[in-house]
Amino acid sequence: MIFDKMISIFSDDTICALATAPGGAMATIRVSGNRAVEITDSLFRTPSGKRVADMLPYTAIHGEIFDADEATVDDVMVLLFRAPHSYTGEDVAEITCHGSRYIINRILSRLIQQGCRQANPGEYTMRAFLNGKMDLCQAEAVADLIASSNAATHNMAMSQLRGNFTQRLRQLRDRLLHITSLIELELDFSEHDVEFANRSQLLSLANEIHGHIERLVNSFNTGVAIRQGIPVAIIGKTNVGKSTLLNRLVHDDKAIVSDIHGTTRDTIEDVTQIHGLTFRFIDTAGIRNTSDTVEQIGIQRAYQKLEEASIVIWITDTVPNMEEVDDILKRTERKRLIAVVNKIDRQEPPYDPLIGMGQGRGIPIVNISAKHGINMEELEEVIFKAADIPDVQQNDVVVTNVRHYEALSHALNDIIRVEDALHADISADLLSEDLRACIQHLAEIVGGEITTEETLQNIFSKFCVGK
Amino acid sequence: MIFDKMISIFSDDTICALATAPGGAMATIRVSGNRAVEITDSLFRTPSGKRVADMLPYTAIHGEIFDADEATVDDVMVLLFRAPHSYTGEDVAEITCHGSRYIINRILSRLIQQGCRQANPGEYTMRAFLNGKMDLCQAEAVADLIASSNAATHNMAMSQLRGNFTQRLRQLRDRLLHITSLIELELDFSEHDVEFANRSQLLSLANEIHGHIERLVNSFNTGVAIRQGIPVAIIGKTNVGKSTLLNRLVHDDKAIVSDIHGTTRDTIEDVTQIHGLTFRFIDTAGIRNTSDTVEQIGIQRAYQKLEEASIVIWITDTVPNMEEVDDILKRTERKRLIAVVNKIDRQEPPYDPLIGMGQGRGIPIVNISAKHGINMEELEEVIFKAADIPDVQQNDVVVTNVRHYEALSHALNDIIRVEDALHADISADLLSEDLRACIQHLAEIVGGEITTEETLQNIFSKFCVGK
Repeated sequence: MIFDKMISIFSDDTICALATAPGGAMATIRVSGNRAVEITDSLFRTPSGKRVADMLPYTAIHGEIFDADEATVDDVMVLLFRAPHSYTGEDVAEITCHGSRYIINRILSRLIQQGCRQANPGEYTMRAFLNGKMDLCQAEAVADLIASSNAATHNMAMSQLRGNFTQRLRQLRDRLLHITSLIELELDFSEHDVEFANRSQLLSLANEIHGHIERLVNSFNTGVAIRQGIPVAIIGKTNVGKSTLLNRLVHDDKAIVSDIHGTTRDTIEDVTQIHGLTFRFIDTAGIRNTSDTVEQIGIQRAYQKLEEASIVIWITDTVPNMEEVDDILKRTERKRLIAVVNKIDRQEPPYDPLIGMGQGRGIPIVNISAKHGINMEELEEVIFKAADIPDVQQNDVVVTNVRHYEALSHALNDIIRVEDALHADISADLLSEDLRACIQHLAEIVGGEITTEETLQNIFSKFCVGK
Repeated sequence: MIFDKMISIFSDDTICALATAPGGAMATIRVSGNRAVEITDSLFRTPSGKRVADMLPYTAIHGEIFDADEATVDDVMVLLFRAPHSYTGEDVAEITCHGSRYIINRILSRLIQQGCRQANPGEYTMRAFLNGKMDLCQAEAVADLIASSNAATHNMAMSQLRGNFTQRLRQLRDRLLHITSLIELELDFSEHDVEFANRSQLLSLANEIHGHIERLVNSFNTGVAIRQGIPVAIIGKTNVGKSTLLNRLVHDDKAIVSDIHGTTRDTIEDVTQIHGLTFRFIDTAGIRNTSDTVEQIGIQRAYQKLEEASIVIWITDTVPNMEEVDDILKRTERKRLIAVVNKIDRQEPPYDPLIGMGQGRGIPIVNISAKHGINMEELEEVIFKAADIPDVQQNDVVVTNVRHYEALSHALNDIIRVEDALHADISADLLSEDLRACIQHLAEIVGGEITTEETLQNIFSKFCVGK
């Protein structure tokens, strides 16, 4: 059924695209589809006269791509995969050439001349999904893996790609199917008024499933924090050392992290990694001492931006008055607050009002010198603890994808309705309907029968070309 | 002898580096050296338990790179080459992983932990040279090929890589050796006072060689123009449409060309391609009507920059006075000048003074509207013709490298000295010395015995890591 709908996006075109980034010493162009071998052979020659069609799968051959006028475009290596043992599940020829853009463009032009179509974004991975090489949430993990920038994002993507999430969903589905079969057996024998399924037993099963789904739903917050970075605001009066602290915290990581493709960030932000977690600093340059009434609007705006932060670092270099401390405490009520006393190389910490502050809400106080780099490791440790993100291992299942989160939220509502119905002793046919809805919502994640063409196009259009 | 000297740079370390650019869907890490297979096997596992050591050369295998804690770093494909049948001539394992920087860095770290060394710039190609896979000028062509941005630079690099230049040098060397052997035969029989080599015959041979070397030396101007782009200045009074014309000429090419790595350009310039040739526009924003005496210094500076141009486009939108025309003609005496009349949508071209101008030096006059894109193709045609660059085909030998140019210039001086000596009927032993010098200068280009470690390091340090 799904394959009928697929026909328009699952064309039997042979597709080509650059699979590596351009600009290195080498670059690889991937040709996939029924005609991959034939088309590659039409523009490739070897000294021995051997054809790609003659090659064994999983072997490579050296030769050259020639132009329409027989001139050499480049010396290349062709690596052959045969359906179904390839990434896409189709015949695949990988052409590795020199990384010059001119050469890459010439080879792609030649392939297109000979009958290839330029691949759409994510089309290789979509074909892998359609050919049963992976399920939908594994396919989505490929994009996440490529975009992974630290150990945590890497582990989440690898776990999903390895099928741990799929496995968890399958277990849930099996339990749901078990309940459903018991209920539906009752329906079949409804004229006999038998009750195959003990209601309290069903309820305890439903409760258990509820718990599992809820844990997955809740893991989304962790997933988002890990993927997008934990938002941190640094506030404080002017000249207390906010910029110095920020520079100290982000040191060299900025360039590395900002250079990653495919993440949700639009702009280059100040970002740092602490123990493999990404922390993202929010621009709150406008926050100053509120005593200046002229700047009220700007300060208001800055406090609004503060709302995005989950961790707030309040930095001071003098004894703050109680009024200021109260203001900060009020403003950051729902945040994890860290108090930092800067410039300890110049004065004697800690300050009494800060000690009081720490006792009130268990707010950590760290004495540092941002300029001289004193106690920075301790501060990083405190920031890492404040993030309160569980250590993600390679087998942990953490929901990172909005689509998955939505499907799981629906499934959670479905199972809650099932529980309510069981409590209210509602008839088997209504129960059955909610159970089926729950199963279907879970199936959506791995790409069940109800996956529409639109959904697929939406998922894969977020990939880059060549994936 | 050369290999004794090489020992310090030709270490038997096994080296690793990213061979593609990072950031695509896929990336390839190249491991080369005696321990390439052993080290790759130490961090790679396959479902079947097969080792890289068991693989046949030119075959690929799917498996995973695992971390020190056994966790999976990535699903990868390993392609094996065995010495001497590899790019470097050594054992080579190519590990193709997902293009994530995190993954790439993890794999490189693992390889280094297991005993690899990060490759130096150009070290793969240097090893290819040292292992006799290519000569020095072919090795240099690899960097040029990767940096090639258009058909002309591509053809020049491909011709050099294919060994056409080497071939030409070998032919010259053979002829020089022929003369030398005749001369030296005389030396052996010097006590008999015989003359094996007819002096006028030797002179005609030397003249012929002179002609060949001179053509190669002269091709360097073409080579430089093609590689660096032909410098073009657009001058004219303010508001005649200089910027509009420039934007029209460079249209979308700017982004494409400026993105190319490894070229000699430091800054992003306005660049366009016409019929596969690169034209580079020089910033002469300061050139204005000289009547304003206050701006004399700025104008002087702009005219100095004009010196860099080989083509000057003078643009006007009104009837210029003869004084202005004379000034322009004088300023551009040694340049190829093109006169452009802009805004022809608003007025009736051409202007009489311009016609006179065209007749004087055969200066082409093109009537355009930069704003409306009228006659732009005609102008591009005129610019292309003014460049006067011969069409470079894939078998043409064009000298593009300063090192080669210098060696050829020395060889040219040597052969001129030989001719002078033959004219002056100088003794065979002196002749022989100049002939040997000429042969040695030509041999330097392909990397003869006199190639020093310093020369090699200098050549390959200009490569990128991974080449």
